[in-house]
Amino acid sequence: MDSVTSKAHEIHFGDLAKAALQQYLAQNQYSKIFILVDENTNEHCLDFFSDIHGSSAETPIIIKAGEVYKTIETCVTVWNALSNMGGDRKSMLLNLGGGVVTDLGGFVASTFKRGIDFINIPTSLLAMVDASVGGKTGVDLGALKNQVGVINQPKMVLIFTELLVTLEPRQLKSGFAEMLKHGLIADRDYWNELISLNESDYHNHIQKSVEIKNNIVEKDPTEQNIRKKLNYGHTLGHAIESYYLEHPIKDTLLHGEAIAIGMILEGYLSHKLTGMSKIELDEIKKVFLSNYPKVNFTQEDIGIIIDLLKHDKKNSHGNINFVLLEQIGSAIVDIKVPVELFKEAFAYYKE
Amino acid sequence: MDSVTSKAHEIHFGDLAKAALQQYLAQNQYSKIFILVDENTNEHCLDFFSDIHGSSAETPIIIKAGEVYKTIETCVTVWNALSNMGGDRKSMLLNLGGGVVTDLGGFVASTFKRGIDFINIPTSLLAMVDASVGGKTGVDLGALKNQVGVINQPKMVLIFTELLVTLEPRQLKSGFAEMLKHGLIADRDYWNELISLNESDYHNHIQKSVEIKNNIVEKDPTEQNIRKKLNYGHTLGHAIESYYLEHPIKDTLLHGEAIAIGMILEGYLSHKLTGMSKIELDEIKKVFLSNYPKVNFTQEDIGIIIDLLKHDKKNSHGNINFVLLEQIGSAIVDIKVPVELFKEAFAYYKE
Repeated sequence: MDSVTSKAHEIHFGDLAKAALQQYLAQNQYSKIFILVDENTNEHCLDFFSDIHGSSAETPIIIKAGEVYKTIETCVTVWNALSNMGGDRKSMLLNLGGGVVTDLGGFVASTFKRGIDFINIPTSLLAMVDASVGGKTGVDLGALKNQVGVINQPKMVLIFTELLVTLEPRQLKSGFAEMLKHGLIADRDYWNELISLNESDYHNHIQKSVEIKNNIVEKDPTEQNIRKKLNYGHTLGHAIESYYLEHPIKDTLLHGEAIAIGMILEGYLSHKLTGMSKIELDEIKKVFLSNYPKVNFTQEDIGIIIDLLKHDKKNSHGNINFVLLEQIGSAIVDIKVPVELFKEAFAYYKE
Repeated sequence: MDSVTSKAHEIHFGDLAKAALQQYLAQNQYSKIFILVDENTNEHCLDFFSDIHGSSAETPIIIKAGEVYKTIETCVTVWNALSNMGGDRKSMLLNLGGGVVTDLGGFVASTFKRGIDFINIPTSLLAMVDASVGGKTGVDLGALKNQVGVINQPKMVLIFTELLVTLEPRQLKSGFAEMLKHGLIADRDYWNELISLNESDYHNHIQKSVEIKNNIVEKDPTEQNIRKKLNYGHTLGHAIESYYLEHPIKDTLLHGEAIAIGMILEGYLSHKLTGMSKIELDEIKKVFLSNYPKVNFTQEDIGIIIDLLKHDKKNSHGNINFVLLEQIGSAIVDIKVPVELFKEAFAYYKE
């Protein structure tokens, strides 16, 4: 696959990526090269890079796997590990893992000694198509997702689709939700392609998703305007994800599973407020429900989720702003939604 | 006093500062205005601003006073307070306090929801002459000072020298050490002026110190080169400060007290390595010992302090780089110092 050059950094695929990393590390005299992994990528992915980092890399820094560990406490562990292993301002951090590793590792690097360089090597489909571009780093604060972070670009993003064979099918589906989002907000033809795919073909479409996201982010890196389109499905999706993450009994939803629901709910809002047809709304619902399990929300669940919305980062001055669709392939930002529509949206989901 | 305009933000003094703040807040539609204080500035300084922020400000967020609370745990408290009080991306944080409040508050603001605006209102002499310019934010990690942070500029810095009357004399002296440093690294005449001052005259020289620092920071905002001059006395000074901060029995040294020792020690290194005369070295020692208590270091203390040096942020590739003086008023950066000179420097201090 070809490389994608973003204004801030380069995104390389496959063989080109290995060569690009080797060349980059040779050209830049880093004092130490650290690798951050989680338990899973330590076991399944690290060996793949033995020929790349060679003897120059330090012992890997290993964190626990899962969104519940995307916390400041985990950051403290990693900052301390970097300190204890003699990390300095000229150190490099390679983040090898899914979105938790790349988001948290990016934040740790951006703040260690007021900022060291980092490179992201996403290992999940979700991280490849989403976390690989845009420079958002951060961690959760209790139930509130990504409350603490900075925007800072990695020096390079390397995508090895071979690593996807290590992923569980449920994780693969989770990443696919972000790809479907790229179709919904920007490209009707891409949506049509995606909805007829088998899971074994997802990897051939990663580059298209990266290009769509990169295109948007370059036009609006600080999310003043069109970058907000990438939040489609995420306003309600994040609230749902937070709720299930913190719930003492209910199973956790993966990010893609939560935003899949968010995209149906916000599809309903789009139908009501920004002119998307009922036919397209039903198509969206059908696609997502055929790919993701239907969740049984109680009225109590729905009440708490709507309450969590007020902490969404995209709010300001007490208004809840949404990205909605005019039609499949075209999104519009900054739409204020009357609160009473939220319950209707859940009712449509449950139909 | 006149205002100083830095490339990144404006620094205003006294009456101009009150007017500038009122105008700035009126022109920028912040959704909420938060004030961060510590126990001391809550008690002694907050009232001074009642006419400025008026009814638009939220209940102040109060943290404990002192460097030992400049931690990630305190940041978590403040991030949570901002969340719980409905802070959003369009919120403003006013940091009213000494260097701990402005460094920590700047870091919290720079990372809350990936960054909100902040204004610094330094209340200590140290924060007025040092923390007010340059955009360094951050907190300590265990014994290691400022290990976690970012470089990010406040929207504005407001200096009210009236607030200095609330300071204890020891704190005033601590800030004076940074002013003396400005003379040593950049201006022999300013050094001469300062060393004959009474404490009651310090406030008339704040603007000169701010100008010297601003001048250096503007030429090299990311500390690639001449900005390092501002670290004079800080390499050994930080190690000494860390050691006393963590020591179970010994009293804590204030920042200015620690770097005053650092400036004598690094003056010795300057005499040995970069040509400063013995006469000037003795002058430096005499000035600092007449302003700050002499500390009795044991050989064990000295060994541990030298050990701590290897964690200094200014190191890279295992070398310890120093800023040294060619003469009073002129500094030179990136001088590697042989380890054996450290003990000699302490011996000179103890003479």
